[in-house]
Amino acid sequence: MKVVKFGGSSVSNAEQIKKITDIIEADHERSVIVVSAPGKRFSGDEKVTDLLIKLGDSIHGSSFDRSVYDQVLNRFRSNVNELGLREEVFTAVQSKIDEAMDLIKEGVPYGMDALKSCGEDGSALVISAYLTSRHQKASYVNPRDAGIIVRNQLGGALVHEESFERLYQLRERDGILVIPGFFGFTPNGQLVTFSRGGSDITGAIVAAGVKADLYENFTDVDSVYCVNPNIVDQPKQLTSLTYREMRELSYAGFSVFHDEALIPAFREKIPVCIKNTNNPEAPGTMIVAEQPDREGHVVGIASDHGFLNIYVSKFLMNREIGFGRRLLQILEDEEVSFEHAPSGIDDMSVILRDYQLPQEKEEVVVKRIKDELDVDMVLIERDMAMIMIVGEGMNQAVGLASQAATAFKDAGVNIEMINQGSSEVSMMFGVKSESLTAAVQALYKNFFE
Amino acid sequence: MKVVKFGGSSVSNAEQIKKITDIIEADHERSVIVVSAPGKRFSGDEKVTDLLIKLGDSIHGSSFDRSVYDQVLNRFRSNVNELGLREEVFTAVQSKIDEAMDLIKEGVPYGMDALKSCGEDGSALVISAYLTSRHQKASYVNPRDAGIIVRNQLGGALVHEESFERLYQLRERDGILVIPGFFGFTPNGQLVTFSRGGSDITGAIVAAGVKADLYENFTDVDSVYCVNPNIVDQPKQLTSLTYREMRELSYAGFSVFHDEALIPAFREKIPVCIKNTNNPEAPGTMIVAEQPDREGHVVGIASDHGFLNIYVSKFLMNREIGFGRRLLQILEDEEVSFEHAPSGIDDMSVILRDYQLPQEKEEVVVKRIKDELDVDMVLIERDMAMIMIVGEGMNQAVGLASQAATAFKDAGVNIEMINQGSSEVSMMFGVKSESLTAAVQALYKNFFE
Repeated sequence: MKVVKFGGSSVSNAEQIKKITDIIEADHERSVIVVSAPGKRFSGDEKVTDLLIKLGDSIHGSSFDRSVYDQVLNRFRSNVNELGLREEVFTAVQSKIDEAMDLIKEGVPYGMDALKSCGEDGSALVISAYLTSRHQKASYVNPRDAGIIVRNQLGGALVHEESFERLYQLRERDGILVIPGFFGFTPNGQLVTFSRGGSDITGAIVAAGVKADLYENFTDVDSVYCVNPNIVDQPKQLTSLTYREMRELSYAGFSVFHDEALIPAFREKIPVCIKNTNNPEAPGTMIVAEQPDREGHVVGIASDHGFLNIYVSKFLMNREIGFGRRLLQILEDEEVSFEHAPSGIDDMSVILRDYQLPQEKEEVVVKRIKDELDVDMVLIERDMAMIMIVGEGMNQAVGLASQAATAFKDAGVNIEMINQGSSEVSMMFGVKSESLTAAVQALYKNFFE
Repeated sequence: MKVVKFGGSSVSNAEQIKKITDIIEADHERSVIVVSAPGKRFSGDEKVTDLLIKLGDSIHGSSFDRSVYDQVLNRFRSNVNELGLREEVFTAVQSKIDEAMDLIKEGVPYGMDALKSCGEDGSALVISAYLTSRHQKASYVNPRDAGIIVRNQLGGALVHEESFERLYQLRERDGILVIPGFFGFTPNGQLVTFSRGGSDITGAIVAAGVKADLYENFTDVDSVYCVNPNIVDQPKQLTSLTYREMRELSYAGFSVFHDEALIPAFREKIPVCIKNTNNPEAPGTMIVAEQPDREGHVVGIASDHGFLNIYVSKFLMNREIGFGRRLLQILEDEEVSFEHAPSGIDDMSVILRDYQLPQEKEEVVVKRIKDELDVDMVLIERDMAMIMIVGEGMNQAVGLASQAATAFKDAGVNIEMINQGSSEVSMMFGVKSESLTAAVQALYKNFFE
């Protein structure tokens, strides 16, 4: 049994929906389908989810932006018409949207979640109807019926453990099941969405729950690149990588996947295959539990802007037991999450995502550090970027640090920070944002060309 | 005005004491002298401080080891005789030793400190008497009279701020002042010793207090080497380095100085000169506040064995706010001091000195980490060594990391950990203990040859 997830561009219009139906029909194992909301049909187009958010934001009392409402409905209207589906399919989508809008008008919490979920839900209704019209035994399955139970949490729903047992029951059901991605229900029956890109989360949860033999994730690229293709032109494609590698790569802005989306599948050791809806014959990229045989140790380079460094220095810091802990405690009190904390003898740096420390919070944090830790200096350095080199077995490969550091030197880039030694599969470098492109290009050249 | 400190080998016998008297007389600015206890006269000899500790340990009730007692007295007896000093000088030393032994017999706390201090005290009595016999206006100054006020603390006395003001009064006094190193007095008048090697601490405190133009530290080497001479044969000598460089080098086992001894002098920006009693014409090594002009960025390589790594991994660690802080809190609760804490996405390492975590403490710490943090894995890896490359301006020098990492590669040594980014003047590498020598030799070759 295969669980297959189709991303936004794969369900953006009737033509794409025909393609994915061909893909589903080509393999009888593809019996559980998870779908995203319709994405962009062309450059400059708007994603249905973005339109739904715009629509929700426009609601004030009983008024709302009717042109946005029409834009959303038209996306489903044209799909229904072009696929030759019955009017009831459109009506079903429309009434879900109207119900969600009513929740927002009534000021019900999570009304916005309900409205945002209508993109995926509409996709699932349309696609299951289309499969049926092509004489497949197919049915729409609401996440509540499927058993996706979640806990609400700031930044997006977290799945409940009991979901997996419930999802396993789906194996009993006949035919092709089409499940909308991106949302679940709390034990009280409240609809909650995952964080953005959450259809990948649904796909992985469902794959784990039904214990799929394979989880196929169809998107619009042939495979995963070993480096951001916006930085390096036509980089190498990866035929396989391990979960750990994928996870480390996802962390620092590796673009294909929503960070942490694949975790439920990893936990169950379900192999994952990234494939292209527009070129389904291409082999794609396999993500697996164990390291496959291959040459070299480095499989990918991830990079991301938007980090900052809190530099703190205090004479005799290393003699002060608890200094590092108290510094981190201040950040925790202020709800600032940090990434790394390299320390010297009389100084310590804390690296974090830039957005964690807006200006007003910066003032509070700096003041507390000065007052409570009696430090000599606190310095906030923004515009930092992080670069991560990833590969199983790296920590045992003599000379890799040298190869990487030489690439930085060749690019004339100063390394602001090196963090190596904790992860077995990665090595992390901090550079100034302006140097990111040159550094990544040099690393690519050094490791992949 | 120069403050001059002479180490144990410089005052080990009459011949050495004559040398230092020549040195003192050669420069009229050398008016405040701090002396150590007599050190080894030859390989295999015992230092007087070690003998005093042995003597103290041998005291049970009114009995003690008379042969050790005699050994101590004989060291002073022969100095007094060979320098042609009056019997009263010997008697003064002896009575101080006897008084300290009485304190121990009576079970007075810090009696042992009093006994340990007799080596330095005896040196100062003998040397001031010898200077007087050579028609110098010289006087013995007890640390209490000099104004060295300390706070008692586990591991050694800490100096009180008010000491510096008091010491400044010494400038009013005429002639050569000879002060025993290694101890001070609490505000209640109790004698407390500094940590081992504490004559260096006294020297720096006195130099800072009197605002000396120069603090000269006479020992038995011509200058500071840029690397441990037990690892690299006849390494380069350093003509100058900055306080920060010295401090970073001291941290990881740089041998010349007791870690942190020079801090009081650094604070007052007193230049320090390391010189050789046995070759006073050699220029020595200057330690100064500002970076002097020089070629290259790396001035020294320090290294030390005896570190361990606590490796902790937990799936989704990076999503858990406060994880790092709680891990460090457990260590703090158990009074374990850590050095560095590099972290990955799902893992974190804590590097500490091996002796911080004896077996019984290891069990407690590992259990608490497992129970309280619900981690997937805790691993203790002993036998780690740390190597530090030090130099002002390193953090701005493109290519240094590459040069260093290449040296490790050339030596076939795997880098277990890199910690760079906090300190502006150092870069730290963790390796397995067995690889330390090869790595340091390769680094030396790469940076200094």
